[in-house]
Amino acid sequence: MNKPTIAISVGDLNGIGIEVALKAHAEISKLCHPIYCINRKLLTQAAKLLDTTAPNDMELYEVAGNFNIEAGKITQKSGRYSYDSFMTAIELCKTKRADAVVTLPIHKEAWMNAGLEYKGHTDLLRKYFDKEAIMMLGSPQMFIALFSEHIPLKEVASALSYEKLKTFLLNLHNSIQKEKIAVLGLNPHAGDNGVLGNEEEIIIKAIEDVNREIGFEQFIGPIVPDVAFTPYFRQNYNYFVAMYHDQGLAPLKALYFDESINISLNLPIVRTSVDHGTAFDIAYKKRANTLSYINAVKSAIEFINN
Amino acid sequence: MNKPTIAISVGDLNGIGIEVALKAHAEISKLCHPIYCINRKLLTQAAKLLDTTAPNDMELYEVAGNFNIEAGKITQKSGRYSYDSFMTAIELCKTKRADAVVTLPIHKEAWMNAGLEYKGHTDLLRKYFDKEAIMMLGSPQMFIALFSEHIPLKEVASALSYEKLKTFLLNLHNSIQKEKIAVLGLNPHAGDNGVLGNEEEIIIKAIEDVNREIGFEQFIGPIVPDVAFTPYFRQNYNYFVAMYHDQGLAPLKALYFDESINISLNLPIVRTSVDHGTAFDIAYKKRANTLSYINAVKSAIEFINN
Repeated sequence: MNKPTIAISVGDLNGIGIEVALKAHAEISKLCHPIYCINRKLLTQAAKLLDTTAPNDMELYEVAGNFNIEAGKITQKSGRYSYDSFMTAIELCKTKRADAVVTLPIHKEAWMNAGLEYKGHTDLLRKYFDKEAIMMLGSPQMFIALFSEHIPLKEVASALSYEKLKTFLLNLHNSIQKEKIAVLGLNPHAGDNGVLGNEEEIIIKAIEDVNREIGFEQFIGPIVPDVAFTPYFRQNYNYFVAMYHDQGLAPLKALYFDESINISLNLPIVRTSVDHGTAFDIAYKKRANTLSYINAVKSAIEFINN
Repeated sequence: MNKPTIAISVGDLNGIGIEVALKAHAEISKLCHPIYCINRKLLTQAAKLLDTTAPNDMELYEVAGNFNIEAGKITQKSGRYSYDSFMTAIELCKTKRADAVVTLPIHKEAWMNAGLEYKGHTDLLRKYFDKEAIMMLGSPQMFIALFSEHIPLKEVASALSYEKLKTFLLNLHNSIQKEKIAVLGLNPHAGDNGVLGNEEEIIIKAIEDVNREIGFEQFIGPIVPDVAFTPYFRQNYNYFVAMYHDQGLAPLKALYFDESINISLNLPIVRTSVDHGTAFDIAYKKRANTLSYINAVKSAIEFINN
């Protein structure tokens, strides 16, 4: 069987990403053919800071740039380089030289310092492909697609409309075609028949119409938000739609913190990512955990094969 | 050592409460002296429906009333009786014939049918004692006090004010005097320095002023909501303040569904409760789980002893 090729975006080199990549190289090489978007000089510098050497069998795709890595610092150069690495990985994927992109964490402030206006990887992907990328986070046991993402809580209710939710669910169906998906309510007790809010009416109608359009009962809900993640409910569902960031991610991280990953759906390319940040506090201290990264690689391979 | 006396409010007799009480009687009798607020006739009827007999050593405090128990039905009579049982338990506690009240679940619609306008136990306690009862839910490993409770999500942000939060934290301190308490932010990433909402400024100020007033750093925060319940964070904190219902209860029920309980703080009496409903679907089917109830009794005893 041919192993898929995965372009690795190395993330902010002042953070833990490159340590994770070096540590996990042998393991992920069994599953895929990784191409690291970084040049030899910077890789050697990072490896040296970690008291190690880069394995000989690491295939690099040269990304130009040179600077001193400064563990745990927000710098313009490191921000710019993480962007260049990501764009190179996308390019490899777009031109079919790679089957998927797996990203290590960038630092948003470093991007800002480098004059890059994106809020992060997903925001960039949306603008680059001009597509409504869906952000899904999770572990193999429990994936959560976010209907709304990085907006203030007070804007969440008004961000919910029938048209937007219907489009979201149809897009999600295009990426996840068979599995049942539990859609959470917005309000406590899913509104308790209107006593605690009435946005659930929108959710009910969107679910009904989407299920009719796709021809089967893929979406169920609105599920009472504090029931959706109980052990009993989770036995029957692996996919959830959360109406807002913390509704889905607080339970997810309570249950599956270290192993959780981030997937961008509804895009022309497959992209998965670790679900942690640059962890500047432990950068180059040899304490980084590789579980999320390895799961991100595994999920990318699953999406490639589907 | 004297065992404390606990008044048991039997809840809606058409639900699972009385089964839980009968099943757990022997076990809780080792910990406390329970007084059940129910009359002999109704207890006998309930026991018979469960193919059992009530243990001889169950001490009852007679609550007048007679009706046919109808498993899983919302009825006015059963609603009324659950109210009378609760009021009797409060009375026993107020008059020092009991040290605490432990409640089994009532059904809100049955209360409505009986002409009782309360939204539930906590709402009634608030009105009865004219005190701002604090609702705290949890298991011994993780307790969550709710700053806002049963309100639509769209009202959550505007329900947060400096004065209200300060009063809430001071009241909470009166009940939990020593342990550190983690206060969650309102917005994703706790607002990300204002980019995703600015209510965290209120939270910061309230925490600072309360800590100064009580003389030590009891409250910390605002904590990023989807970080607060990760395993690492939970290692250091057992008490949390959630800004709204599902922010705290979705993670709680994801982690500790069966064992979780409900405590009313900031009241003249100690009151704990199971954290499940009447479960009409399994009423009188001998499938009820007693873990939450037994934890409620244990927590009541802890609060009595503190």
